[in-house]
Amino acid sequence: MRTLLVIGIGAGNPEHLTVQAIAALNRADVLFIPDKGSEKSDLAALRHEICDRFVTNAATRRVGFGVPKRAEPTSSYRSTVDDWHEDIAGIYEALILDELGDNGCGALLIWGDPMLYDSALRILERVRQRGNVDFAVEVIPGITAIQSLCASHRIALNRIGDPVLITTGRRLAAEGMPDNAGTVVVMLDGNCAFRTVKDKDAIIHWGAYLGTPDEIVIAGRLGDVEDRIVATRAEARAAKGWIMDTYLLRKPGEAEE
Amino acid sequence: MRTLLVIGIGAGNPEHLTVQAIAALNRADVLFIPDKGSEKSDLAALRHEICDRFVTNAATRRVGFGVPKRAEPTSSYRSTVDDWHEDIAGIYEALILDELGDNGCGALLIWGDPMLYDSALRILERVRQRGNVDFAVEVIPGITAIQSLCASHRIALNRIGDPVLITTGRRLAAEGMPDNAGTVVVMLDGNCAFRTVKDKDAIIHWGAYLGTPDEIVIAGRLGDVEDRIVATRAEARAAKGWIMDTYLLRKPGEAEE
Ligand SMILES: C[S@@+](CC[C@H](N)C(=O)[O-])C[C@H]1O[C@@H](n2cnc3c(N)ncnc32)[C@H](O)[C@@H]1O
Ligand SMILES: C[S@@+](CC[C@H](N)C(=O)[O-])C[C@H]1O[C@@H](n2cnc3c(N)ncnc32)[C@H](O)[C@@H]1O
Repeated sequence: MRTLLVIGIGAGNPEHLTVQAIAALNRADVLFIPDKGSEKSDLAALRHEICDRFVTNAATRRVGFGVPKRAEPTSSYRSTVDDWHEDIAGIYEALILDELGDNGCGALLIWGDPMLYDSALRILERVRQRGNVDFAVEVIPGITAIQSLCASHRIALNRIGDPVLITTGRRLAAEGMPDNAGTVVVMLDGNCAFRTVKDKDAIIHWGAYLGTPDEIVIAGRLGDVEDRIVATRAEARAAKGWIMDTYLLRKPGEAEE
Repeated sequence: MRTLLVIGIGAGNPEHLTVQAIAALNRADVLFIPDKGSEKSDLAALRHEICDRFVTNAATRRVGFGVPKRAEPTSSYRSTVDDWHEDIAGIYEALILDELGDNGCGALLIWGDPMLYDSALRILERVRQRGNVDFAVEVIPGITAIQSLCASHRIALNRIGDPVLITTGRRLAAEGMPDNAGTVVVMLDGNCAFRTVKDKDAIIHWGAYLGTPDEIVIAGRLGDVEDRIVATRAEARAAKGWIMDTYLLRKPGEAEE
């Protein structure tokens, strides 16, 4: 049977690779690298840099593939994502069938950790359900952007005994700060949704390009630093052509017990 | 100035160490290892195993220290934790002053990632505020128990675009499933709080001793597997003398968009 290794490679710092991930990269016959299509070329370059540095098995091949761009959501966000995932499932299926022998081992290099706001595992499940090829899946965790954010700010994610909500910019803007958690982590936010938070005494810890040489971090009382974050973000994005950022918001004061 | 490296060592699997963590272990003059007092001896053994395997710098010393047991919460959980942290701050302060030279570098080996339900960073902040010794802190992230859980179950943490709440057993029992997240991760649960969840159609992914040779995982519809988890947990705990387990609960059906 074929095996697919779904390997978390960290969210920007090659030093975040684990011993297990390095071993997995070297176990694979083929490394599948998204480096065509809509994938940002800096990110594809980082994947190649990781392979250059850590892959010592000379028998391992790299195969690049294109990722289709997601259509703009029309009526339903759900069905747009559905179509997009079905397209990618077709691409994965072809890679598995064409590039791996009957007992071959392929690796997907996943940004951060495959468990966090990533659809590779769900898409592989679709491939399995299409029924055209059988394969086993192994998952290798990787350091997420949330962990890079906390490490760079030298902070704990949670207050003592207090819950944490991980959410998206869209949901933060729609729902505001949660009642059931003292800390919110926001990912996938193209719109600086922190500006919509009413309590300007909340503390924000923001980071962009975390773990990379271009890392930027800003922290402080939301009301004091939000404009600076918006400006810094716009400037960095214009200079580089793309940005990846994430942040956490903490309610002021101590957790209630 | 003295430097403290706060190093995430993963939550049970030595292969989860990162390249950055291994480099940090080898940069330290002294590795501080909790291996006396209330620390479970299996966990102390794993820390030593990690050092044996990855520390190649012969100049690095190990210094064991005892962690006081937390008093049973009396009137206020907050002040119990407060006293306990103050005790540990005193121990850290003495270690930094006695074991590190003026420009010395020490390392604290933290289970999982220092950002997640761990107080080392907060306690070091207390040491700083006591004002008896000055030092810099660097944080090195590590793979958490949540990541091990998802990897072993080969699942994503979140549904598409849907938030995740990370909480404790005590809070789950008190508050039930959240309205604002399709997924809840529960840590620090000595009481099988999943039994209090009313919707027995929820899906549970449970894991104990994750990442270790003793790992146990169970998944299924809550109503179908909860008794098996309770029994398995009790049995394993009795056999080994201790248990560490965590789980995620997912509402049935797809995320609303
Ligand atoms: C599709 S999610 C993938 C998350 C990834 N699987 C992980 O474990 O971090 C992408 C989002 O992660 C965050 N992100 C990923 N890498 C980042 C980085 N290096 N710096 C800041 N944010 C990052 C951003 O919020 C971005 O919108
Ligand atoms: C004090 S918290 C520390 C978490 C740690 N910093 C991390 O990043 O995973 C301890 C809780 O983590 C979970 N945990 C830690 N290691 C685990 C393991 N190997 N298997 C299952 N659960 C684990 C349990 O829920 C336990 O109660």
